[in-house]
Amino acid sequence: MPNYKLTLSYEGTRYRGWQKQGNTGNTIQEKLESTLSRLLSEPVEAAGCGRTDAGVHARMQVCSFRTVKPLDCGETLQRLRQQLPEDIGALSLEEAEPRFHARLSCTGKTYCYRIRIDDTPDVFSRRWVLPCPGALDLSAMKKAAALLCGKHDYSAFCSLRHRKKSAVRTVSAIRLEETEGELRIFFTADGFLYNMVRILTGTLLEVGLGLREAESVPAILDSCDRMQAGPTAPARGLTLWEVRYGK
Amino acid sequence: MPNYKLTLSYEGTRYRGWQKQGNTGNTIQEKLESTLSRLLSEPVEAAGCGRTDAGVHARMQVCSFRTVKPLDCGETLQRLRQQLPEDIGALSLEEAEPRFHARLSCTGKTYCYRIRIDDTPDVFSRRWVLPCPGALDLSAMKKAAALLCGKHDYSAFCSLRHRKKSAVRTVSAIRLEETEGELRIFFTADGFLYNMVRILTGTLLEVGLGLREAESVPAILDSCDRMQAGPTAPARGLTLWEVRYGK
Repeated sequence: MPNYKLTLSYEGTRYRGWQKQGNTGNTIQEKLESTLSRLLSEPVEAAGCGRTDAGVHARMQVCSFRTVKPLDCGETLQRLRQQLPEDIGALSLEEAEPRFHARLSCTGKTYCYRIRIDDTPDVFSRRWVLPCPGALDLSAMKKAAALLCGKHDYSAFCSLRHRKKSAVRTVSAIRLEETEGELRIFFTADGFLYNMVRILTGTLLEVGLGLREAESVPAILDSCDRMQAGPTAPARGLTLWEVRYGK
Repeated sequence: MPNYKLTLSYEGTRYRGWQKQGNTGNTIQEKLESTLSRLLSEPVEAAGCGRTDAGVHARMQVCSFRTVKPLDCGETLQRLRQQLPEDIGALSLEEAEPRFHARLSCTGKTYCYRIRIDDTPDVFSRRWVLPCPGALDLSAMKKAAALLCGKHDYSAFCSLRHRKKSAVRTVSAIRLEETEGELRIFFTADGFLYNMVRILTGTLLEVGLGLREAESVPAILDSCDRMQAGPTAPARGLTLWEVRYGK
C-alpha cells in the first residue's frame, strides 16, 4: 500500500484536540480522516506527529496514511483544500517511503508559546496569543529556561493521569524571543509528555512574575512531583511550530 | 464639556459594522457607547472616523466623545480594556482640543484590502484575508490602480442606494504590495463613498484575473454608472488601516 506524508496547519480553537475520541466528530484527526475517506472512497486512518490538546494550534503538523489505490498528490491536495474546514489548511502532500510514520519517524519537535507583553491589546492575534499576564522579568525567565533544558525525568511537568512509562526526555533548547509586542517561547525536544509544554510555560511565567526563583528549577525536576511545578498555562497560547525528520 | 480622542482596533467579523442601527446592539459603536456609558455613569455618544461596513475590520479607528465629568485617561483606558469585548481593543485615550471631531477633523484615511496570492492556505489570517481567487496579473492591476487615482466623481464606485450628494473624492494613492504570500492594496483618500473601496477592489480583481482591461478604467469613471464597475469584493478582506489628522 502506498504511503503518504501530509503537512497541515490548523487553528485549534474550536476542536477537542488532534486525537480522535470515539465518535465525537470534533477532533482534527476525525475531520481529516472523514474528509480523506470521502475523497478517496476508501477508509483512511491518519497518524499525527504531535497529539495537540484541545484548543492548541499547529503551524506545522505532519501526518501519514496509507491507501489501497495510489493517489495523484497534486489533485488530492487541491481537493483536500476545497473540502477541509476553513480552520484546517493542507500545506503539502507527497508520497513517503514505505516505512515512514509521522510520529515514530519524527526526530524532533518545536512548540511555541506566545504571550502578549505589550499593554496595548492586539485583537487580531488574540486566539493564539495569551493576553499580557503582567510585567515579566525576562532575564529571570531565561535563567530558568536554561535550567529546564537537558536530559531529565520530566515527571514534575506532566499531568499525572496521563503519565507515560518513561518520563525521560531531552529538551535541547528553550529559547525566548521578543517580537512585535509579544514574547515567544520556543521549546525543542525529542518528544514531550502530556501537557508538558504548558506546565513548563506556567512555571516560567511564575518566575517571570516574581512568584518563584529561577534557582528553584532543579529541585522541581528532582522532585518528580507535579505539585512542585507551576500551573498549566492556557491552551490557546500554544502552537505546534515545527516537526523534523531525519538527522 | 471636556473632549476626548479614543483610538481603537477591532476584528469586525461578528459585527454589523461601526454605525449604530436602532438598538440591534450588535454594532461596534453601540458596544463602545454602552461600555463607556456604564463605565462613566453618564450617557456617552461617540463619533467614529470611518463607518466601516458589516464584517470590515479596523487596525486603527479613531472616535471622539465628550463627557460632563473630566476623565483620568490612564485609568479609563485600563478599565475600557477590561470591559470591552475581546474583539475590540482600546489602543489609546487622550484629551482632545475642544473642536476636535473624529470624522470632521480627519484629513485622510487609508484602507487596506488583503488577498491571499499563495496557493498554500493560511488558517491564521483567514478572517481578514480573502482566499486566493486565482492567478493575478499584478502589473495590469498596477496600471489600473494608477488610472483610478486622482480627483474624480466616483459615482460608478458607490452602491447606488447610499449615494451621497457629491461623489467627488480625491484618491491620492492606490499602492499594491506583495508580502508573505498575500497582496495588500492600500487605498488613500480624503474620504470614501459607501462600499467604494470594495468596488474598487472588485474592479482591480477583474483586471488581475484578465476579465477586464486596465485601459477600461477611465470609461468606468466617466460613466458614473455603478453597473460599469466590477463587483463589490467581500467585506472580510477589508481593514481600515490608518486615519490621519492635521496636514
